[in-house]
Amino acid sequence: MIIPVKWSDEGVLMLDQRLLPMEEKWLTLKSFNEVADGIRNMVVRGAPAIGVAAAYGIALGAKNFVGTNVDDLKEELDYICGVMGKTRPTAVNLFWAIDRMKRTFQKAKAEGKSISEIKQILIKDAKDIHDEDIESQRLIAQFGGELIENDSTILTHCNAGALATGGVWGTALGVVRGAVNQGKKVSVIADETRPYLQGARLTAWELLQDDIPVTLITDNMSGHIMKQGKVHAVVVGSDRIAANGDVANKIGTYMVAVLAQKHGIPFYVAAPLSTVDMNCATGEEIPIEERNIREITHVQDIQLAPEGISVSNYAFDVTPNELVTAIITEKGVARAPYTDSLKKMFEE
Amino acid sequence: MIIPVKWSDEGVLMLDQRLLPMEEKWLTLKSFNEVADGIRNMVVRGAPAIGVAAAYGIALGAKNFVGTNVDDLKEELDYICGVMGKTRPTAVNLFWAIDRMKRTFQKAKAEGKSISEIKQILIKDAKDIHDEDIESQRLIAQFGGELIENDSTILTHCNAGALATGGVWGTALGVVRGAVNQGKKVSVIADETRPYLQGARLTAWELLQDDIPVTLITDNMSGHIMKQGKVHAVVVGSDRIAANGDVANKIGTYMVAVLAQKHGIPFYVAAPLSTVDMNCATGEEIPIEERNIREITHVQDIQLAPEGISVSNYAFDVTPNELVTAIITEKGVARAPYTDSLKKMFEE
Repeated sequence: MIIPVKWSDEGVLMLDQRLLPMEEKWLTLKSFNEVADGIRNMVVRGAPAIGVAAAYGIALGAKNFVGTNVDDLKEELDYICGVMGKTRPTAVNLFWAIDRMKRTFQKAKAEGKSISEIKQILIKDAKDIHDEDIESQRLIAQFGGELIENDSTILTHCNAGALATGGVWGTALGVVRGAVNQGKKVSVIADETRPYLQGARLTAWELLQDDIPVTLITDNMSGHIMKQGKVHAVVVGSDRIAANGDVANKIGTYMVAVLAQKHGIPFYVAAPLSTVDMNCATGEEIPIEERNIREITHVQDIQLAPEGISVSNYAFDVTPNELVTAIITEKGVARAPYTDSLKKMFEE
Repeated sequence: MIIPVKWSDEGVLMLDQRLLPMEEKWLTLKSFNEVADGIRNMVVRGAPAIGVAAAYGIALGAKNFVGTNVDDLKEELDYICGVMGKTRPTAVNLFWAIDRMKRTFQKAKAEGKSISEIKQILIKDAKDIHDEDIESQRLIAQFGGELIENDSTILTHCNAGALATGGVWGTALGVVRGAVNQGKKVSVIADETRPYLQGARLTAWELLQDDIPVTLITDNMSGHIMKQGKVHAVVVGSDRIAANGDVANKIGTYMVAVLAQKHGIPFYVAAPLSTVDMNCATGEEIPIEERNIREITHVQDIQLAPEGISVSNYAFDVTPNELVTAIITEKGVARAPYTDSLKKMFEE
């Protein structure tokens, strides 16, 4: 059972995903700044996991607060949340978790709780966010699993597994695990997902651990394999879903979605409602993170491209809603028109 | 001026493309077996370059023949051609060059030439193949350049440059160079082209040498960039073109072609007629090479994927003719229906 981020009395524990699959090393992060660095530097990644990690980071920052004045704590928390909010711009779960922790603080403050009570309340809320995330993935696994037919091969891009969430299930890999739990025979094709290789390093590792058959391919191979009729469904996660169902996800998702449509293959997005940003009307409004070009020009210390080359490194792209067959959430399966179906899920 | 393979009195000289862009090292290959290994192990790659290298390898094998009987030389050449023909199955220029060298031998034998005369005839024919290849690229550059508008950004996949051909121009990069020579302002977006990174290592290097602006991206980024309106034309090479215009090229080309069509971007294929296989009615008949999975699981000695993972490594895919805007050859620009237009080019 994979849980990539945990609370402990020593600090926030993070499985260092940069070292997987070769090494399983846990880091103990003792300040909110270390947690923010862990998110920024992709020790932990995946939108739901980032949300959980940010909540723990804020709780840790509050716990480490040495003042005696609640207003000073508020100022400190505002600062902490500001630092957290600058780590990864696309994953909306980050901002969702920050907002929730802020509201929890405001409520506790309004109720006249003491500083030590507020610290405990924030720690408990971060743990609740974590537990609720795992429960959401369990439900996503169940609803999503029902969409998968027996004897299916599922293509997935990047890692939307237990490692990308609070743990245990995952979103896209939650759907795979859900189908397997429902007794279906399922195998997975994993895109390696350049430049960070989340597919090769993380998805492959997770599925090997669960004995779910997995075949690794390069990102540029999925079209060829779809053309051969070897893919029955595509399932991916998301970093932010707009109110109209446009889906921001790892760079390359858009190409997979276009190819899936061309070949009549259903394209499913699995994500908790904390990934849906009702304040973003369309995908046009979702900020797309650009990362350091060294991720592309080097693998560790090996240089792959000539000195001085110009490089673009967009971390995400947006798949328009018309390419999305369904969005699988913890409240059930949303279908087009998403402006209505997603709205309904929040109202339930 | 880049010429990746050369004839010398010492043997066949090959620029070791596996070491580019970090090191420019020339190998001197002293037997046909070393040349065959050089092709198989991708010291040289790219269909036209493979054709030239194979011709030189056969000439070298003949030169090294120590017998005195022309029938024995024929037997030796049959053996050499058998070895050459097993190096890379998809590149049809390989078989085209083998057939041409065989015919040249048969003609010389029929004319009663001596063994030492035959050796000289074969060396000369290999050099002619090389010269003709460079001349073909020059014409492709001219015809292709005319299709490119001023102020264009051209996306290319893999390396179809001077390095992939007899040299100087290249096929897809020939079109870029042709447009530049015609006074047009052109910039290039180069897919890195996993797993072998011909785009990152070779295309980027070639264009930097020529001071043509080039931006490197990962393969999974081209769709996002097309969606942003930043690509005005796609130009790629080919390893084999069927009589109906279906195009086998580096894995990932098919996905680029599908995305180009979706965005209304012209998709051009640049290749000499030696790449067109009139014996293949459609792309279905083109054999697709599968290569060692270590190309995907490792970069040099760095392991990227977990031990024991199952991997597919298709080296090529087939882009159906309906996605191809035009095929640029040394005889001019062929358009659909290709069954007619390609046939006409061979008849001219």
